[in-house]
Amino acid sequence: MDMFKELNPSLRTLMTPGPVEAEPRVLRAMTIPIIGQFDPEFLEIMDETMQLLRMTFQTKNHWAYPIDGTSRSGLEAVLNSIIEPNDKVLVPIFGRFGHLLAEIAYRVGADVATLECEWGSAFDQDMIIAEIKRVEPKVVALVHGETSTGIMQPLDKIGRFCRDNDILFVVDAVATLAGTDFKTDEWFVDAVITGTQKCLGVPTGMAPITYNERVEKIILERRKIEQGLDITSKNPRRIQSNYFDLSQIQAYWSPTRLNHHTEATSMLYALREGLRIIHEEGLQERFERHKFHEKALVAGLEAMGLTLFGDARYKMPVVTCVNIPEGVNGDAVRSTMAKEFGVEIASTFGSLAGKIWRIGSMGFSCRKENILKVLAALEASVYRHGGKINSGEALQAALDVYEGKVVSSIK
Amino acid sequence: MDMFKELNPSLRTLMTPGPVEAEPRVLRAMTIPIIGQFDPEFLEIMDETMQLLRMTFQTKNHWAYPIDGTSRSGLEAVLNSIIEPNDKVLVPIFGRFGHLLAEIAYRVGADVATLECEWGSAFDQDMIIAEIKRVEPKVVALVHGETSTGIMQPLDKIGRFCRDNDILFVVDAVATLAGTDFKTDEWFVDAVITGTQKCLGVPTGMAPITYNERVEKIILERRKIEQGLDITSKNPRRIQSNYFDLSQIQAYWSPTRLNHHTEATSMLYALREGLRIIHEEGLQERFERHKFHEKALVAGLEAMGLTLFGDARYKMPVVTCVNIPEGVNGDAVRSTMAKEFGVEIASTFGSLAGKIWRIGSMGFSCRKENILKVLAALEASVYRHGGKINSGEALQAALDVYEGKVVSSIK
Repeated sequence: MDMFKELNPSLRTLMTPGPVEAEPRVLRAMTIPIIGQFDPEFLEIMDETMQLLRMTFQTKNHWAYPIDGTSRSGLEAVLNSIIEPNDKVLVPIFGRFGHLLAEIAYRVGADVATLECEWGSAFDQDMIIAEIKRVEPKVVALVHGETSTGIMQPLDKIGRFCRDNDILFVVDAVATLAGTDFKTDEWFVDAVITGTQKCLGVPTGMAPITYNERVEKIILERRKIEQGLDITSKNPRRIQSNYFDLSQIQAYWSPTRLNHHTEATSMLYALREGLRIIHEEGLQERFERHKFHEKALVAGLEAMGLTLFGDARYKMPVVTCVNIPEGVNGDAVRSTMAKEFGVEIASTFGSLAGKIWRIGSMGFSCRKENILKVLAALEASVYRHGGKINSGEALQAALDVYEGKVVSSIK
Repeated sequence: MDMFKELNPSLRTLMTPGPVEAEPRVLRAMTIPIIGQFDPEFLEIMDETMQLLRMTFQTKNHWAYPIDGTSRSGLEAVLNSIIEPNDKVLVPIFGRFGHLLAEIAYRVGADVATLECEWGSAFDQDMIIAEIKRVEPKVVALVHGETSTGIMQPLDKIGRFCRDNDILFVVDAVATLAGTDFKTDEWFVDAVITGTQKCLGVPTGMAPITYNERVEKIILERRKIEQGLDITSKNPRRIQSNYFDLSQIQAYWSPTRLNHHTEATSMLYALREGLRIIHEEGLQERFERHKFHEKALVAGLEAMGLTLFGDARYKMPVVTCVNIPEGVNGDAVRSTMAKEFGVEIASTFGSLAGKIWRIGSMGFSCRKENILKVLAALEASVYRHGGKINSGEALQAALDVYEGKVVSSIK
């Protein structure tokens, strides 16, 4: 057993688009001893978490609870529960995670139509609406913030159009919820999925979702209780997955407490504490904090002489994509940052791999010392790998923002 | 925010068949700060966890890793990845969780045959083998320990027959692994699934699995990388689920580190620590510990005048089912135990509801003080609710076992 030492990994400054550093209070909440899943005190924790989630999703929906799995488990649970074989689904794609929505819909058996735009930009909403008119889908599934490109898609007009035309609008807010404004009800979004390891400041492993009565109607029509609990339950329109069957999971989260799975106790403690911290800070204050640190980060990057990737009109406030300077090996820079400074930033996927870095400023990771540290480490590492850089400017520019001395070039 | 107080649930003595109390060292491991999922130190933690899992499953299989979800996520991942539409699957059922295997196989599109025996007994292995000969399935899926009835199914002859006849043998060891002997390779089991919240002494939320080359062959034949990572990847035999696509998940757990999901960091810390504790104790020593405390528990129950439910030849050592005495309200007794003593035991499902109690003695919950406490609380609560009981005998009988003074009636 000597080979398996006590766990003691190095401390890291996580400035990727997830996973980010968890709030210390959240980590401590996970040490609370386990209680039974039907203990009245645990049921109260479940109900409180639902209330906190509704506040975070800015919704009056009754249903707001986590799926026990990483972010994509929430995407799959919602799409699996809504989509029946051959249903038409439209997925506008502007990065890797749009492809993921299409992939999941396709595997569920949907007739998937896609619409693509160049990575680094978002869609004009009218363009998507025109495509909806042409395709006439049952469901439109769309990413809000594409961490692969740092781009954020406006949603309000699309939501309005879908509602007026009885189309379901499903949005992946994994990377944005609790970091930037997301108005579930005001934007007419029927179902929203998020993850814990980004702007919520909680470890990976849960996928909070919310949905309204329009979605619930379909779920109830497809309801089938598993045989071990109700041998008579039959439904030819049953949801394909048992694990992701929202008709059973919502019954587990209701006063009937249908015994579907055993809720992930410690992760629920963590989620509740993370949400509690969010509402102690205040949603609007939290969004402003993310914008403020983004301003300092961008000021520093620009002062260094680096340029940002993508259409500035649609930039995510919580992810900043940077063009890797000509002649600089992006992975070598990241490696120096990690090994020498303990600071992690991200590369990206597909056609953009090797061309941009992605810097996250999410949740607990989004704070002054981290912004200053990532700027210092990046500047030194680019320089070390032969990049042309304005030395000594970045931290001054960021400090100027922190001291209120400048208005940066964005917003 | 005053309504959402600091989390501070009551301490409980958990003597159900899961979730059970987590090892204190496991709870502490979860407070370790997050590191990135592709950090070399995190990759080492992943590799070590695979090694520890192989030792726990008693297998030489290369593949042994957790699915990020509760126990049934592992069942669904394995069945989803192996079974293609219309594949014949045989599920012998002797309790609720056999029905669950059938349910999952059915939803995946299998042609499911079932074989049932009375709840409270197990199958003669030859009976299952005869049914396999008749049905000629591609897959036999079977529960090892049925927590709903406290019964454990012998597996070795079935495994041998399946291997000889090129049939895949999938076993649900959620309730037994690391609590009682489970010999993956020696019993010719092709895929095994377990959960963290029972005999592993880790919180709910992960489902460790292992499988051999026979299973891997099918998984590789069905391999399809998601569009966001490889737009050219096509496969008409693709696995239905993306989240549970073992062809992608095993690539994530291999040196290629395919970016499928973000591994649940804190839960992986917890799992590794739980497994480390198991191997510090030693597997055989751990099985003996569970048997020893079972002996004390049973001696106490019998001294009290209660009778055990089910066929004693097949009793699970980690779950003890007790007949509720005539005229006693089982739920009222459980409620008194919980409210007055802080001790939780379980009821059960289906036709046995109201007829038996289930007492778990799993993992960290399986220790002397807990056995004595559950006996004391049960005796007082049955008495309080008008049950006829031999007062004062149970703790003496259990203490006699602990002091080595008696050999109990079982094994």
